[in-house]
Amino acid sequence: MTALPSSDDIARMDAADPLAALRERFLLTKGEVYLDGNSLGAASIDALAALQVAARDEWSRDLIRSWNSAGWFDLPVELGDRIGRLIGAAAGQVVVTDTTSINIYKALHAAIGLRPGRDVIVAEAGSFPTDLYMAEGVISALPGMSLRLEGRDASRIEDLLDERVAVVLVNHVNYRSGELRDMAALTRKIHASGALVVWDLCHSAGALPVELDASNADFAVGCSYKYLNGGPGAPAFLYAASRHLGQVAQPLSGWWGHARPFAFETGYAGDPGIRRFQCGTQPVLSLRALKGALDIWDQVDMQALRAKSLSLTDLFIELVEGQCAGLGLTLQTPRESAQRGSQVAFAHENAYAVMQALIARGVIGDFRAPDILRFGFAPLYLSHADVAHAADVLRDVLQTEEWREARFAVRAAVT
Amino acid sequence: MTALPSSDDIARMDAADPLAALRERFLLTKGEVYLDGNSLGAASIDALAALQVAARDEWSRDLIRSWNSAGWFDLPVELGDRIGRLIGAAAGQVVVTDTTSINIYKALHAAIGLRPGRDVIVAEAGSFPTDLYMAEGVISALPGMSLRLEGRDASRIEDLLDERVAVVLVNHVNYRSGELRDMAALTRKIHASGALVVWDLCHSAGALPVELDASNADFAVGCSYKYLNGGPGAPAFLYAASRHLGQVAQPLSGWWGHARPFAFETGYAGDPGIRRFQCGTQPVLSLRALKGALDIWDQVDMQALRAKSLSLTDLFIELVEGQCAGLGLTLQTPRESAQRGSQVAFAHENAYAVMQALIARGVIGDFRAPDILRFGFAPLYLSHADVAHAADVLRDVLQTEEWREARFAVRAAVT
Repeated sequence: MTALPSSDDIARMDAADPLAALRERFLLTKGEVYLDGNSLGAASIDALAALQVAARDEWSRDLIRSWNSAGWFDLPVELGDRIGRLIGAAAGQVVVTDTTSINIYKALHAAIGLRPGRDVIVAEAGSFPTDLYMAEGVISALPGMSLRLEGRDASRIEDLLDERVAVVLVNHVNYRSGELRDMAALTRKIHASGALVVWDLCHSAGALPVELDASNADFAVGCSYKYLNGGPGAPAFLYAASRHLGQVAQPLSGWWGHARPFAFETGYAGDPGIRRFQCGTQPVLSLRALKGALDIWDQVDMQALRAKSLSLTDLFIELVEGQCAGLGLTLQTPRESAQRGSQVAFAHENAYAVMQALIARGVIGDFRAPDILRFGFAPLYLSHADVAHAADVLRDVLQTEEWREARFAVRAAVT
Repeated sequence: MTALPSSDDIARMDAADPLAALRERFLLTKGEVYLDGNSLGAASIDALAALQVAARDEWSRDLIRSWNSAGWFDLPVELGDRIGRLIGAAAGQVVVTDTTSINIYKALHAAIGLRPGRDVIVAEAGSFPTDLYMAEGVISALPGMSLRLEGRDASRIEDLLDERVAVVLVNHVNYRSGELRDMAALTRKIHASGALVVWDLCHSAGALPVELDASNADFAVGCSYKYLNGGPGAPAFLYAASRHLGQVAQPLSGWWGHARPFAFETGYAGDPGIRRFQCGTQPVLSLRALKGALDIWDQVDMQALRAKSLSLTDLFIELVEGQCAGLGLTLQTPRESAQRGSQVAFAHENAYAVMQALIARGVIGDFRAPDILRFGFAPLYLSHADVAHAADVLRDVLQTEEWREARFAVRAAVT
């Protein structure tokens, strides 16, 4: 067994980090290590400054005029293009609007409409649940459609593809385990069966390079409040490949998706471009915070981001496994870095209480039922020293068994 | 012809206004009269303060913990109950979430599900267009459904009701003319035919007393960024009568509508209450601004609000008609105050240019195609003196014909 990295080794890693300076743009609490950026990203100075301008100048002073003068009306497509750069999508294919759940509904309907005669949606049993719930919703309104789930009877998505499958809804990075799918390879297999694919990028957008266009993806959805740091509940995004635009329909056909929204026509005529996936008026204050949050990404090289992400997660796995042997942890995340997103999960029998004890010590991760300790590593604002500190605290919490204290056992309403 | 009110008369009206003090809570620009609060309500000190706390303390400092500690997760139902008080809805029947368009989709599906065997949606040709577009979207996904429109061939809603009608979608106040429907009477007629009703309250919530429960309404939707002053694009609300809860389904079945969202179950099980109409994660910053904006409503008596609203719109109609005779204006709003919301519309052949000229002089209303000058009167922050000033400026713009200047002819992308 080789020695674990020393504090000098870790200091050298941080000194060599090309993204280290970006940390100063974030508002982090001293003494805390925030490993929950895969649930809610940290606030940046830029996001808060943008929000203040939006509230004080655009809303309070300019009022209704800001729809034009401050560009509010075009924020969904402007921000869509900026996120597009981070997920490998050329301009005009991404819109920021509504929620991930609602965008899944739109994308599934759009895909099904492009595959008439096919009546099956394939999804993952281990998916983030809302994907499954929305697929159920789509099915409920389309007689004859049904859902096949990967993971039942050890099936893989590849095993479920046949001429009945219209669309496959698949997570790029699994929300629990952090396992990363090969987007290009799976998209090829899905296309070979004649189906279309909807990629859920909630746990990969801003966490690693994504190549939607190069992978020939059809549709994608994702959220902007995790690694993109857009603020709590910031609007989600939807990608539709340009080859599908102009042919697609989706039933949430509100006025913001109309080709001429301010002509106030009686009949719906969908915009020929990506705006067709818009529906109603968007929460501008939340969009403006997101716009500020995206500024920092102009300085980020996605390959450097990926290198740092893997360096952080490799280090965490190495330190935790090296320091916590025999303390009840089981790694749930692929050890092979190419198959890993930017998070690390360990199972522990008392995961809920352990996480509460960690949080009490300032190491903020989260718990996922029934037994997962989940740690997200946002490369923009975390250092290797943070990782080492978190691993030390995890060891201490497990060795002292302080998680057994009664105060850590009571579950909050939302976890 | 009686004399028009003098400036002394108008000063007396303001001195007697029980809501006059509330104006100080709003951030208004000196020298402007803002008559577009029926499109985007003005910002209040309370809304901006709430937004700052949300950004600085809840997001930046407390991060993920704020879902519990700041009550973020319950904001949709907390704010729903607070809006409920303003629209005559007892607790547990209103949720603030998503957009009006999306909530129309949910409510129509829910109503149709409660009326099996019926296959017609009735709506108004003169409806705000997104209502019609969403009804089209519902129909597109439900084979056999069709849409009947009031206003074609001089039909009234009453004429269109029969045993095929599942649901009627109707605006409480017309977005162009400001005409107010009798909610209780029309709901009775719709129920007598066996159909359900979805009321669109976009132009009545916060503008006048609404009595959903007392009218026996089934569903309602509305927005929070007009008279409720929640901020640009603030999330919308949905009302479902308690007698329908537990029996309703809607296809936007995301995880926020699940009975146990954090159990991460594979199958959807809808919440038995109003939360079932939630779908995905909501834009918290926008919700927090709305929460601040609602504080002022605790001090507002809705009957006093209605009295002031009618006093303002009566005065505007009287002054404009008295001062602008022969200048090309035609009143589009009911002269009978009981049939009027809180806005006044005049048609003018060159309405677009006239409105631009008014805006250049600091009287901010809006234009609605093809020929409508629309003026909204938010009773919380407007005075009778504002109304008199606006009427004077309208007279001046029309008499001088300054609207003919070239700079007023070019239409902005969004108006």
